[in-house]
Amino acid sequence: MADMKLPTRSEDFSEWYNQLVLRAELADYAPVRGCMIVRPYGWALWENITAALDQRFKATGHVNAAFPLLIPRNFIEKEKSHVAGFSPELAVVTHGGGEELEEPLVIRPTSETIIGHAYAKWIQSYRDLPVLINQWNSVVRWELRTKLFLRTLEFFWQEGHTAHATSEEAEAETRRMVDVYTDFARNEAAIPVIPGRKSDAEKFAGADITYSLEAMMGDGKALQFCTSHNLGQNFAKAFEIRYLDKNGTLQFCWTTSWGLSTRVVGAIIMVHGDDQGLIFPPRLAPYQLAIVPIFKSDGEKATVMENARRLQRELADAGVRVKMDEREGISPGFKFNDWEMRGVPLRLELGPKDVAKQSVVLARRDRPGKEGKSFVAQQGIAAAVKQQLDEIQQALFDRALAFRNSRTVDAADYEDLKKAVESGFANSWWCGSGDCEAKIKEETKGTMRCIPLEQPGGSGKCVYCGKQASERAIFAKAY
Amino acid sequence: MADMKLPTRSEDFSEWYNQLVLRAELADYAPVRGCMIVRPYGWALWENITAALDQRFKATGHVNAAFPLLIPRNFIEKEKSHVAGFSPELAVVTHGGGEELEEPLVIRPTSETIIGHAYAKWIQSYRDLPVLINQWNSVVRWELRTKLFLRTLEFFWQEGHTAHATSEEAEAETRRMVDVYTDFARNEAAIPVIPGRKSDAEKFAGADITYSLEAMMGDGKALQFCTSHNLGQNFAKAFEIRYLDKNGTLQFCWTTSWGLSTRVVGAIIMVHGDDQGLIFPPRLAPYQLAIVPIFKSDGEKATVMENARRLQRELADAGVRVKMDEREGISPGFKFNDWEMRGVPLRLELGPKDVAKQSVVLARRDRPGKEGKSFVAQQGIAAAVKQQLDEIQQALFDRALAFRNSRTVDAADYEDLKKAVESGFANSWWCGSGDCEAKIKEETKGTMRCIPLEQPGGSGKCVYCGKQASERAIFAKAY
Repeated sequence: MADMKLPTRSEDFSEWYNQLVLRAELADYAPVRGCMIVRPYGWALWENITAALDQRFKATGHVNAAFPLLIPRNFIEKEKSHVAGFSPELAVVTHGGGEELEEPLVIRPTSETIIGHAYAKWIQSYRDLPVLINQWNSVVRWELRTKLFLRTLEFFWQEGHTAHATSEEAEAETRRMVDVYTDFARNEAAIPVIPGRKSDAEKFAGADITYSLEAMMGDGKALQFCTSHNLGQNFAKAFEIRYLDKNGTLQFCWTTSWGLSTRVVGAIIMVHGDDQGLIFPPRLAPYQLAIVPIFKSDGEKATVMENARRLQRELADAGVRVKMDEREGISPGFKFNDWEMRGVPLRLELGPKDVAKQSVVLARRDRPGKEGKSFVAQQGIAAAVKQQLDEIQQALFDRALAFRNSRTVDAADYEDLKKAVESGFANSWWCGSGDCEAKIKEETKGTMRCIPLEQPGGSGKCVYCGKQASERAIFAKAY
Repeated sequence: MADMKLPTRSEDFSEWYNQLVLRAELADYAPVRGCMIVRPYGWALWENITAALDQRFKATGHVNAAFPLLIPRNFIEKEKSHVAGFSPELAVVTHGGGEELEEPLVIRPTSETIIGHAYAKWIQSYRDLPVLINQWNSVVRWELRTKLFLRTLEFFWQEGHTAHATSEEAEAETRRMVDVYTDFARNEAAIPVIPGRKSDAEKFAGADITYSLEAMMGDGKALQFCTSHNLGQNFAKAFEIRYLDKNGTLQFCWTTSWGLSTRVVGAIIMVHGDDQGLIFPPRLAPYQLAIVPIFKSDGEKATVMENARRLQRELADAGVRVKMDEREGISPGFKFNDWEMRGVPLRLELGPKDVAKQSVVLARRDRPGKEGKSFVAQQGIAAAVKQQLDEIQQALFDRALAFRNSRTVDAADYEDLKKAVESGFANSWWCGSGDCEAKIKEETKGTMRCIPLEQPGGSGKCVYCGKQASERAIFAKAY
């Protein structure tokens, strides 16, 4: 399929995305509307994402567990904001084992309720706190408009759920996870993100405070990268999660939840990809380097392949994820295009002349044409490859940051804001009123993405109503 | 809870199991009947199981992917044996997003159908073969009698699904996975298994041939450890999975599937555990070693903890999974019992005298009392610990094998068989007739577990009908 031309991003960003996901074999449509099959190449990316996050979760004291996917429907109704937010999106199981169930079950849309129920049972004393549990699974939300990775009925994610003795500890945990996700976004996904607080209108159904990371996609729109919620005592009260404190007094716990989903795959595609296809950040790429051997005769093939296999082993031993492209009946040029479309950060070309000189050609995916090519000696190849991968990782981040900066406007007045959200982010003083937020959304289609944690201080006039405002907020059209 | 006494295995094996799973915090009952919460300690064990298997799957050329959990109900009906086997166990989703669905969906009981549908789309030519995909997920089967880990409505597993150009390749794949699982069972779980073929009555709904590994539990009953199915062209024909061969002729593919589930956690408990609790094989144990520091005064505490932390770091750096037990207000004796109950293979005791002598006490979980204790110098501790862990791993396997041998009878006649299945395995000549198999099951409650791949050759008289038989089979009561 690599020979068919993708639409360019400027022609049709949405169609560029859809076709790329299918052609690169990241995912496919499932026979059930709105569901997704994550194909091996896409899942390998997700496995690298999960490994990078899981390591960070465990380093910050969390452990994994597994809660059931079936939840009694009345559980969803126990927390009043929660039921309002999730009821319209539920998938309901009414029959099991050939019989109608006495009480319908729902497939989890998220697990605060069933985990709240378990924590109420497990937690008795302050000695049992904090409880710091995460789970990797999938959830189902009955979405109407779907798009592969970005919004699907079933999606894959992790959901962390913690319980604490004090409000301060719960807030510290919520913020700690914002830091963990920020570190992951910047250093693994090479995506600059803006950590911030959500408005009341945009926060999670059942949370006191929701934090999110917001990223700018290649078309200037915002994507919520992940969220971290301080749930206060809302779920603790709904599910009676209580503990005896050191004085023997019964107290409600303070809980949090935080999650990151396969949406992030969509973010990686839309932040780094170009008109030739995907560009994966080396630290998460399923293959970091593709070897394309070049030969004409059988004699050349034997020489080249022997050398190529030696290089493959040497690179793999050094921890580089290598793909050897041995497909027959396909030209090297086709293979070059194919691996470019699939986003492999580095290509290693090896022909008879390279074997004779004991060198290789390395071609960087992020710099098309001659500029990204270098001749590298086979002696010390692993170190050279690793250095180039590090450089690509940094270059992708720098480019994404420069792009975001170029599309972010410090919008002092409403006209500026209206213009800014057509192509990117508006950063403005906002008085905090839900009315102003709603009007801006209605009139510009730009939503309040977040109130960045990093604030300039001081005060200014609200971009909508002109009243005194003490915080700046990001407005943008969003996925 | 460690101070309450477990029933002994001989008193009540089933109750010993149930209480142990709860007390050791491996799992808990969910609010939905028959569903299970896998708690962090149980999930850590499962994560080690998945890592050991995943590595083997990838080393044999497989890749992971993710298929949706929702399947159109009519998919299940496309393969006639499959529908007969799975229809009674389905969980059915009839409503989504507040509306009744036009066509009901089922939660996957297994994924042959939806994967068959995808393969039909993805596979066109012999160049696309073989397809070797695995997925880690959970499935739902509406079981009536449930038991934690052994049989639950939702259970966690992996399911491999492969497609091949020829019958021979499909059979080779089916057998390769039997070898992979056998290697895992013996070398990671320390469980001796009997690889064999299932009878027609016991094979998978939709398979031509089913292979399984059978293991003996601590009460002499059999447990099916995992299965590997040669599906022939049954699903290929039902879902039109076809490819163009080298001559340009359209051919049906040959497919396989193979799976291993959280039942294996139950097997590990029931094979290795004793009246004091769990005993985990070191290679899979969440913690391989628990450090119990012993002190009376604050001064002793400072000295002991400083030394204990140094040992902890040294062992962790050497790749040993270490748990430091710093719980306050709990006696060392209580901690000893607690870690014994939880099955940690090695305990490291460290008191002021040990610090002075720069030695430690190591206590082996598999050898209670003085016999399993040794004084070991702190110098070179990591090597000593690793050696003892290797010895425990081997000792557990040897003990399980000796136990199985002691409970396996070469039953020459039906009286022998009847007696044998009361306490273990009967190994007998069997003519292959479904009638004999059904009568044995009806009269003894012993089922035909498998026809072992390893056969003595020659022939004998069928244990039931007396007719000439060319294969020996294992009969046993089973979980």
